[in-house]
Amino acid sequence: MRTGIGAAEALRIVLENAPALPAERVPAARALGRILCEPIRAGRDLPPADNSAMDGYAVRRADLLGAAPERPVELALAFEVAAGALAARALRAGEAARILTGAPIPPGADAVVRQEDVERVGEGLRLRAAPGPGENVRPAGEDVRAGEEVLAAGTRLGPAELGMLAALGRSQVAVHQRPRVALLSSGDELVEPDGDLRGGRIASSNSSSLAAQCRELGLEPVYLGIARDTPEDLERIFRAGLSADLVVSSAGVSVGDRDYVRGVLEKLGASLLFFGVQIKPGYPLVFARLPREAGPLFFGLPGNPVSAMVTFEEFVRPALRQMMGHRALFRPTLRARLAERLAKPAGRLHFVRVRLERRGGEIVAFATGNQSSGVLRSLTRAQGLLLFPAEETELAPGASAAVQVLDPDFLAAEEPGF
Amino acid sequence: MRTGIGAAEALRIVLENAPALPAERVPAARALGRILCEPIRAGRDLPPADNSAMDGYAVRRADLLGAAPERPVELALAFEVAAGALAARALRAGEAARILTGAPIPPGADAVVRQEDVERVGEGLRLRAAPGPGENVRPAGEDVRAGEEVLAAGTRLGPAELGMLAALGRSQVAVHQRPRVALLSSGDELVEPDGDLRGGRIASSNSSSLAAQCRELGLEPVYLGIARDTPEDLERIFRAGLSADLVVSSAGVSVGDRDYVRGVLEKLGASLLFFGVQIKPGYPLVFARLPREAGPLFFGLPGNPVSAMVTFEEFVRPALRQMMGHRALFRPTLRARLAERLAKPAGRLHFVRVRLERRGGEIVAFATGNQSSGVLRSLTRAQGLLLFPAEETELAPGASAAVQVLDPDFLAAEEPGF
Repeated sequence: MRTGIGAAEALRIVLENAPALPAERVPAARALGRILCEPIRAGRDLPPADNSAMDGYAVRRADLLGAAPERPVELALAFEVAAGALAARALRAGEAARILTGAPIPPGADAVVRQEDVERVGEGLRLRAAPGPGENVRPAGEDVRAGEEVLAAGTRLGPAELGMLAALGRSQVAVHQRPRVALLSSGDELVEPDGDLRGGRIASSNSSSLAAQCRELGLEPVYLGIARDTPEDLERIFRAGLSADLVVSSAGVSVGDRDYVRGVLEKLGASLLFFGVQIKPGYPLVFARLPREAGPLFFGLPGNPVSAMVTFEEFVRPALRQMMGHRALFRPTLRARLAERLAKPAGRLHFVRVRLERRGGEIVAFATGNQSSGVLRSLTRAQGLLLFPAEETELAPGASAAVQVLDPDFLAAEEPGF
Repeated sequence: MRTGIGAAEALRIVLENAPALPAERVPAARALGRILCEPIRAGRDLPPADNSAMDGYAVRRADLLGAAPERPVELALAFEVAAGALAARALRAGEAARILTGAPIPPGADAVVRQEDVERVGEGLRLRAAPGPGENVRPAGEDVRAGEEVLAAGTRLGPAELGMLAALGRSQVAVHQRPRVALLSSGDELVEPDGDLRGGRIASSNSSSLAAQCRELGLEPVYLGIARDTPEDLERIFRAGLSADLVVSSAGVSVGDRDYVRGVLEKLGASLLFFGVQIKPGYPLVFARLPREAGPLFFGLPGNPVSAMVTFEEFVRPALRQMMGHRALFRPTLRARLAERLAKPAGRLHFVRVRLERRGGEIVAFATGNQSSGVLRSLTRAQGLLLFPAEETELAPGASAAVQVLDPDFLAAEEPGF
């Protein structure tokens, strides 16, 4: 097992072990945000038939070739084509048909004249201009031709794609399965948030924040509860997670007397892939594959709230997105200018929690106070994680650094742009 | 009623009529992404008591003042403090207590020495250095002090905020209600996506794409179905939507023979706030307030799939976000360089569907082919909407323009930044 490896190497090992999950078929109406596993070919033309783009009159251009303001042409109003109804018969020479938007063009007609450009004269019509070929006609297949590939495998299904599937009459699609995530915490000091804190206990917050990090990805995790600090209880709870695709535990992974997680993993026959990453917060991160063929991946996150959330962000989230079939796995990243000096020893990559402010075309980053890994407020105040590279020891005020943006509302615009 | 107004004016009228909804109390575990209506004050210190940041030994600094590598001090190992348990008694002079990470500091102790820095000698300990004041002790209230405001009203509840609520033992929070949205389509030519297309009918795709646009905001719309082209059926279906906060219909709003929507709205006593916005696609947009005190807002979107989705994006989505309590209402906006020449007549703001490509620090925008409002592929291929201002008639290749980004995966990064 590798220990004390760099962040990039750890991420490489994680992603190597987290391929995209296989396909499942889901109703198109429930597929928002999912990633297609198959190309979608059109089973029909869109629109299915030539139809009118306007409310007006279907005509034969040959009848109107000489029409001009001073030389109007008169046509007989033969019939009407309602929306959602085929014409009763073909249009004959000298005839026009009333037609509504979206209604099929009757056989024989080759253009539609807008109603604003037509004079009604008794039972007939008077026209003072010749329409162009196909004017105001939406030709069959203008949008999509039957047989054509409309959506490629790997496409994210957004609202437009779901509209297209509906227009094509596709009620099911093959998408990458969603990873099943199981969450647990461990520690005799932990109680559920509504539990009794007397006797030195503390409320478990990691399962709430880690569950929310899963839900942000559209995943509903299974919560296995809090394991007591005994190898037996840990083993029991891990076994309950073996049917998941990915198990996330927090706490219990370092070198203390009661840190049994690694021992229990070994007993279960897990392959330990690494322990310890040169980052802060979050050094004592374990990554393993549990036994059984295609057993779940296992992340043992550190127990401090900030360490748990940051290691989920940096390693678990990209793994989950890759399993879901996404190509771009990481948070939006931007360059920000530091508002203050930051210093640290060389050796570990630091994830500095920062508040972001737009100032005249630039983004300025402010560290959110006490950066201790126990101080959750450093994250509730933060909009992003600033990367302070492992080998750097100082970032001067005004220096530029990469920031991963955590808060989607920071990217939302306050003005529409018009 | 205003007609043919500019986009900015239309948006102003919409937002003026769509204030944030009142509060509801929801379980914190279900509040991800919701906006707080109340400030959250801490009901307890976090951490609740002084506790150990390390596995090690709790000591009294006074006992160790002279300790040095060549002058070790020996202490008696008096008892152990487990995690989640109070110390049985206070630490006395000359004593140390074994302590695990997260366990409360026993009375009398004022520092923790890491176990790596302690030699076990029979029943006692040998220490070769004096710890600093409070070393390896996480003081009570380091993160949060009881009574302090921890989260301000208006905060979006993300994973860190939900972790904080759990740590504070808050199981319910007051957040802005989510708007109830009712969707309908109208048109005799429409059938549901799995319906029979014979006889010139077309599959309704707008309800699928508009429902997905709601779901992207975390809202589950009520789908009222397809109204037939009669005033009676439209009135019936509108009445079914009166219990919603916002009703969205598509088609049936222009000036054709069968466009009854405006008439039915008037019959229902709606206040029509505007009809017609100087945009393309999407000119024939209706905005109204249905009757009844606090009756729902009504958006009559045009029927073409692209027009319906674009007008939802530009007017309905900001209204819904404002009702949900968000401050930043609009899609992330960036500047892109045009790959090709675009031209149009002056007068209307155009929303050009564009594919985006990153090229050496810049973003280049390519129009996605046929921009007809019936061509849904112009949207399935698009990652954004480029704003071609109303009074401009030409944008040259290489010109810079604002683009609203629709595809969240376009903003996701392909590299982690480390």
